[in-house]
Formats: sequence, C-alpha cells, structure tokens
Amino acid sequence: MLSLPVILVNFKSYPEASGRRALELAKVAEEVSEENGVTIAVAPQMVDLSLVAREVKIPVFSQHIDTVMTGSLTGSTTLTAVKDSGAVGSLLNHAEKRMIASQIEEIVEEMNRNQLISVVCTNNFRVSKALSLIEPTFIAIEPPELIGGDISVTSAKPEVITRVVKAVDKLAPDVGILAGAGVKNGKDVKRALELGCDGVLLASGVVKSDDPRRTLEDLVSGVI
Amino acid sequence: MLSLPVILVNFKSYPEASGRRALELAKVAEEVSEENGVTIAVAPQMVDLSLVAREVKIPVFSQHIDTVMTGSLTGSTTLTAVKDSGAVGSLLNHAEKRMIASQIEEIVEEMNRNQLISVVCTNNFRVSKALSLIEPTFIAIEPPELIGGDISVTSAKPEVITRVVKAVDKLAPDVGILAGAGVKNGKDVKRALELGCDGVLLASGVVKSDDPRRTLEDLVSGVI
Amino acid sequence: MLSLPVILVNFKSYPEASGRRALELAKVAEEVSEENGVTIAVAPQMVDLSLVAREVKIPVFSQHIDTVMTGSLTGSTTLTAVKDSGAVGSLLNHAEKRMIASQIEEIVEEMNRNQLISVVCTNNFRVSKALSLIEPTFIAIEPPELIGGDISVTSAKPEVITRVVKAVDKLAPDVGILAGAGVKNGKDVKRALELGCDGVLLASGVVKSDDPRRTLEDLVSGVI
Amino acid sequence: MLSLPVILVNFKSYPEASGRRALELAKVAEEVSEENGVTIAVAPQMVDLSLVAREVKIPVFSQHIDTVMTGSLTGSTTLTAVKDSGAVGSLLNHAEKRMIASQIEEIVEEMNRNQLISVVCTNNFRVSKALSLIEPTFIAIEPPELIGGDISVTSAKPEVITRVVKAVDKLAPDVGILAGAGVKNGKDVKRALELGCDGVLLASGVVKSDDPRRTLEDLVSGVI
Repeated sequence: MLSLPVILVNFKSYPEASGRRALELAKVAEEVSEENGVTIAVAPQMVDLSLVAREVKIPVFSQHIDTVMTGSLTGSTTLTAVKDSGAVGSLLNHAEKRMIASQIEEIVEEMNRNQLISVVCTNNFRVSKALSLIEPTFIAIEPPELIGGDISVTSAKPEVITRVVKAVDKLAPDVGILAGAGVKNGKDVKRALELGCDGVLLASGVVKSDDPRRTLEDLVSGVI
Repeated sequence: MLSLPVILVNFKSYPEASGRRALELAKVAEEVSEENGVTIAVAPQMVDLSLVAREVKIPVFSQHIDTVMTGSLTGSTTLTAVKDSGAVGSLLNHAEKRMIASQIEEIVEEMNRNQLISVVCTNNFRVSKALSLIEPTFIAIEPPELIGGDISVTSAKPEVITRVVKAVDKLAPDVGILAGAGVKNGKDVKRALELGCDGVLLASGVVKSDDPRRTLEDLVSGVI
Repeated sequence: MLSLPVILVNFKSYPEASGRRALELAKVAEEVSEENGVTIAVAPQMVDLSLVAREVKIPVFSQHIDTVMTGSLTGSTTLTAVKDSGAVGSLLNHAEKRMIASQIEEIVEEMNRNQLISVVCTNNFRVSKALSLIEPTFIAIEPPELIGGDISVTSAKPEVITRVVKAVDKLAPDVGILAGAGVKNGKDVKRALELGCDGVLLASGVVKSDDPRRTLEDLVSGVI
Repeated sequence: MLSLPVILVNFKSYPEASGRRALELAKVAEEVSEENGVTIAVAPQMVDLSLVAREVKIPVFSQHIDTVMTGSLTGSTTLTAVKDSGAVGSLLNHAEKRMIASQIEEIVEEMNRNQLISVVCTNNFRVSKALSLIEPTFIAIEPPELIGGDISVTSAKPEVITRVVKAVDKLAPDVGILAGAGVKNGKDVKRALELGCDGVLLASGVVKSDDPRRTLEDLVSGVI
C-alpha cells in the first residue's frame, strides 16, 4: 500500500511542526518526495491529523490510536477517527506512548481489516520478535537510549537491526522493518536499507532542522 | 471571551461527527448560531481539531489537553498544539477522560495565561467546589449517572446545580457554570439558565439526532 | 522451581480473602496441598503478600509487579519488594491489570535473573504466541469473556488451548501453559492437563466457594 | 484518632525498608515513639502492609488506595483490603502516585465513613486549597522540587505552608496540615509545628539514614 522504502517523519509535539507549521512542513515533505520519487510520510500532531491529511498527497500517519471502540469517548483517538481523517495508518506503541500488549493486538487486527498501515514501535530484539507475531505492517525498532540523540541506531547498534530483520523474516515474513532512533542523514538511511530495513522513522532530525527541506533531500539521497 | 450563554456541543467519538461529517456538523452549528445570535461552540474529535477550527467561525474547543509540555511527546495533545490549532479552549477532566488533580491545576493556570477557555467537568457538588478553586473559566457539572441519558440534569438534579452555582459564586465568583448530562432540548437549556448556569454542555442530544439542525434550533430557543 | 502441575488460586480483591481471611484461605490451601501431594499456589491481595508468604509453606505469588526500579516510588509494587516478601513469583498482565508490552519483557527478564516465577496472562492465541517469546515461566491463557463465568475455558474453547500449547511448544518450548477462566472443578483441571497444560489459574471458583476446602479437594482430584 | 503531632514515615520503595527490613524499621519507630511519647506512624510498601500492621502498635498507613470497589480486581489495592490489613489509613495522591480528582473525593468520602485517616498530598497552594474541600483528615503539602532533597520545605518555602495553613483553616477547619519534602531533623519538625502544621511527612531522611533510630530520636526532639 506504501511504495517502499519509506522515510517516515514523526512531528512529535514540537512547536516547530504545530498548526500552520505542520502544514508547511508536510508540504515541504510532499515536494521533496515528488521531486525525488521517494516515499516520505508524515505523522503530524494528533489535532492536526485531518487538516494535514486533507492538504497533502503523501501518506499521513496518526501518531497513536487509543481504541477500536467509538461513541461515548471524549479526548480519545479512535481507529474510526483516524480512518475518517484520511490518514493511511498510525504509529503504535511509540516509546513516548507505550501500549498494553493486548490492545496493540486488537488495534493492529482491526487496522489490517481496514487496510490501515500499522507501525508498531519496539525497544529491543525480544520485544520486536514478540510483536512481529501480532502481524503489523511494520515493526519500527528504536532503542530508547538513542532516541533524539546524535548517533543513528544504524551506526550504534547495527547488530540489533540485523538480528531483528533476520528473526522477523523467519517468524513473520510479511512484516516490514523500519530503523528508528538517531537517524539524521542520507548515510543513515542508506545504511538502514543495507541492513535489510524497509525504511526509517525519524523526528527531531527533520523537525528541528534549520533547513528541513535540505535535510529531507539529504535523507532521500540515501535511497537513490 | 465567549458571549454567554453558550451551548457547547461535544462531538465525543461518535462516527456521526468524524472527519468530513465533523466539518458538516460544525457548519450547521455555525449557521444556527449566526441565524439566532446565540453562541454555539463545538468540541470535535482530537484529530479533527485544526481542520474544524480553520473552517468555522464559531468557537471550537479541544476535548482534552494532556500536558503543558512540548517536544519529545508522541500521540499526546499539548496546550501549544491546541492553541496553534485555532481552538479557543478545551474541555478538561471529562467523565470519559478524568485527570489528575494537580495536572488540571497546572493546565488551567497555563490556559489562563494564554487566554484559552477552560471547561473543567465535575461529577458532584464537592468536586465542583474543590475544582472551582483552580479557577477555570467554567465548571461543567455532569452527574455521571445522567450522561448520555434521557433525563436532563436540570430536571433530575436541579438542586445539585443550585448548590454548585451558589457555592462557586462564593468561593470563586469569576468561574462560570455549565450544566451537562442529559441536556436535550430548549426547555432543558432554559431551565439551566434559570438555575443560574452560563450555558450547557451536551453531546449525543445533537450528534446522534436525526436532524441536528432542528435540535440545535430547539436548543437555542431556550436562550431566546 | 515449582512441582507441576500447579493449581494457582488468585484471591483477586474479594473481601472473602482479605486480611485475616487471606491467611485462613492460604492455610486451607496449604493443608489440601500437603494432604494430597498436589501443588496449590496462592496469589493474595497486594497488601497481604508478605504476611501470607511468611505464614504458609506453599508457593505464594504476587498479583502484579509494577516495575524493576526501586527507591523513590510510592504506592507501587517493585520486583524487589515481591522478592523480599518471600513470594516465589508473580502474575503479570492479568486481564484486570494489563501491562505495557515492553514492561512485561523488562520485568520477566529481571524475574528470570532472580529465579522468580512469572505467570503472564494472555487473552487469545495471537497474544499468547507473541508473549511466549518474552520467555516467562508460564503463559496463562484466559479468554476474557469466560473470566468469572460458569463455563471453563477447557470446555468452551479447548481448541484455543490446544493451539496455544502447540504453538508455544514450537516457539518457546521452555514456557509452560496454564489454563484460566471459568475453571471450577476437578473435571476442568483434568481436561486442562489432557489438553497439554501444566496447570490452571482460577479465582472465584475457590474464593467465593461456600466450602473452599471441598472445592480445592475437588480441584486436586483432577490431578490425581 | 491519631494523637498529634505526628511524624509520618513513608518507606517508599526503598530496599532498605522492604520485607524483613520493613518490620525492623517499623519496630524501631515503635520503640522511639513509645520511649518519647510522640506519635510516629509508618507507611510501608504495599506488599508489607498487613505484616507490619500486625506486628507493631504504632499507626500504620497504606501508601495508596486504588479504589473503593472490591471483587474482580487483580493487582489493585482496595479500601477494604487496607481496612482489613489493620492499617489506620492511607496516603493518597502522593507525588509519585498522583490521582484523579474525582477518585480522591470518592475514596476520602468512603474513608471518612470507615474512620480511616486520609493524608492527601498536594504540590502547591492552589491544589492544597482545592483538595481541602474534599475534607480529608490531612493535607500534606510537598512542593515536588524539594522532595528527596536536602532543604526542608519549612526552610525553603515557609510562606507556602503559612498560606496553606491559613487558607485551609478558613475553608475546611477540620482538615489538618502536614509539612513534607526535605524534612530531615528535629529543627525541621519544630519549625513545621511553629508554622501551624500538625506534623510532618518524610521518607528518605529516615529510611536512608545510617542510623534510623538516631534520626527518629532527633525528629521527635522537635516535638518535645
């Protein structure tokens, strides 16, 4: 459903990518993606999801889904709301929004049924293996100690990625792998793909960049 | 900041008010508000907030705020994101999203500093008194057993409202009072205002109505 | 560490098994266990853990562990506290206390390192498979719709148990399987063992029994 | 129910006060209390509550209560369990276990009905005022930035305590005030009482002391 490899940019709750600026950054991502023929996807803040999804053509992800229920829930984000927003999928279980195991399973199953793309974040080898059996679209392996840091997981812990790629390939071959944490430039992207990943998940590297367009162009250069 | 009285419609997570339909319902509310000169405000689902706030001129509220922090948070709704969305304020501590006492205080204080309107939901007399000392813009008293039901709090428990209005008037005279739970029609609105409220908070009555426009027109008739 | 099969009795938060009565019920379990040479273990309420563990010789489990950390935590149950209590292990991720996936992994790993017995509860086939890769001592499969009910999982859904037993045997052969939900009598225990389980996990069947001793005797008869 | 002033020692999750050592520390507190005729109360770890409450005569508190419900709850601490443990009351809403506003109210009301002593922790002036209207037995004011530190709240922020004492005296005169955060010695205790408090709440000062007996003796010297 998504042309691979993918560079997925999580806007987190950075003021630099909030409201009007969410839209601007998403449009820059769209332009870089179209100019280079490389898939760039964005995960804006919860409140900006419908707006961004309506205004850009690149794939838009929610940062989280609370539940498969609908109705008498206030302040929650339902799978239905994400689907109706025009998003193509969602991050789940991000290090900053860890989820209950059985809820990941319930939500992923319903996302699969609805052709929504699920990106389940994990923190280490064993959790990656375990959650791959839930059969999300992607596992995004992000060692927490590297998140927001200056060293890419692909340099700091390439063996973790290699082991996850290999194990998941055996346990759940349909599940893709994204490398996250510390990814900053085209070299990191290139390395992630060489290690067998289907793309990368990153945040501050783009959102807090002085020049997000140039950073995105550098990132896609790792694919081309 | 809000012309009183106010009829505040919480879209909850009803599929009837999600995505494109959120926008449609908000526009109906805008029309009924403008035609009748009565303040109608809407609280769409989290993911629809920026979109709805951009497309209608009536006051738009968030259903919830998680934190006053910004930055390395994924899947959360920050005060900054709500402000940047164009919303005028937020519900807090709804029965379906109860909040930690000290966090309500921290968020309300920061909302006051940012001229955002805070609507703190409460479940009974004592909690209403206590949270009025936090000095939100409004306390919305909603006895949980009446939420989503057919009998308005103004009929079922008028004495709770009267006691809250009186106590808050003494403890925190700047804090407004909304009546919630079971509000369905103009008669309920009229009664709420007679009991000393500054408006009403409702959800299913409008969102699940066969004819939301007519329901809204009936509701505003309670003001005129 | 535990002589199998095991009948594990969760006291939940039943007043019938609280305080002084926790001790009484644990002593009855101890007597029935010793008289029949069948392992009965008990999981008393959190506040009763140290007391019960000190007073009986049968294996005592915590109902939950919050964290592997120690120190500046108030109102939490740490792995260290459980270890120091004299308990031999803990339930984790019970349907009434679901846990974050990565925390289950972190706690189980630390329990393994400390020779503590971990019983990770799961709700269905897929979650059971996934969490078996975390390598707890036991997976306790409890379809939530049968918990507290009158029909044992071994009668209502024997195929779920069979599939879990088979899959876990392949994925993580060292992990034991307990059958939970609706287990009430010796026949249910017998059936669980025939299906390949290493024991059962039950609660109300014993705790709310008019005659817990007789119920326990009936349960152990399923083993003998 | 408690002879004032009180020195309330929270064992937190310190390994120094876990299991067997919880009992030892509680016994030291009991001895110092009896020798000096000053009320010392202890709040051991959740799992040690029943054991400690059974073995010492000084007042024993829970560190937390989850709910007023009983029954099908696993890994939670109910009001009933705390009562049955022999504890005289509980801390609530500690900085390390903040609680939902309406749940504090529900639990305090039920504790009042059961003659259990409630100690509601608060972080600042406004939250203290608000939660005093819930009418707990005590408000324990603990500015979070001083918790676990070397400077007592009575030295660092005496004016916060004075303001809370004064405001609560007006709003809810039956509610007592404890000073917490950074309390370490008899001088801090003396100062707290001079500022109008009914006692102190402390943790590391005693639990991590090289000589808890001497520290406790120093603390009670502030009362005598």
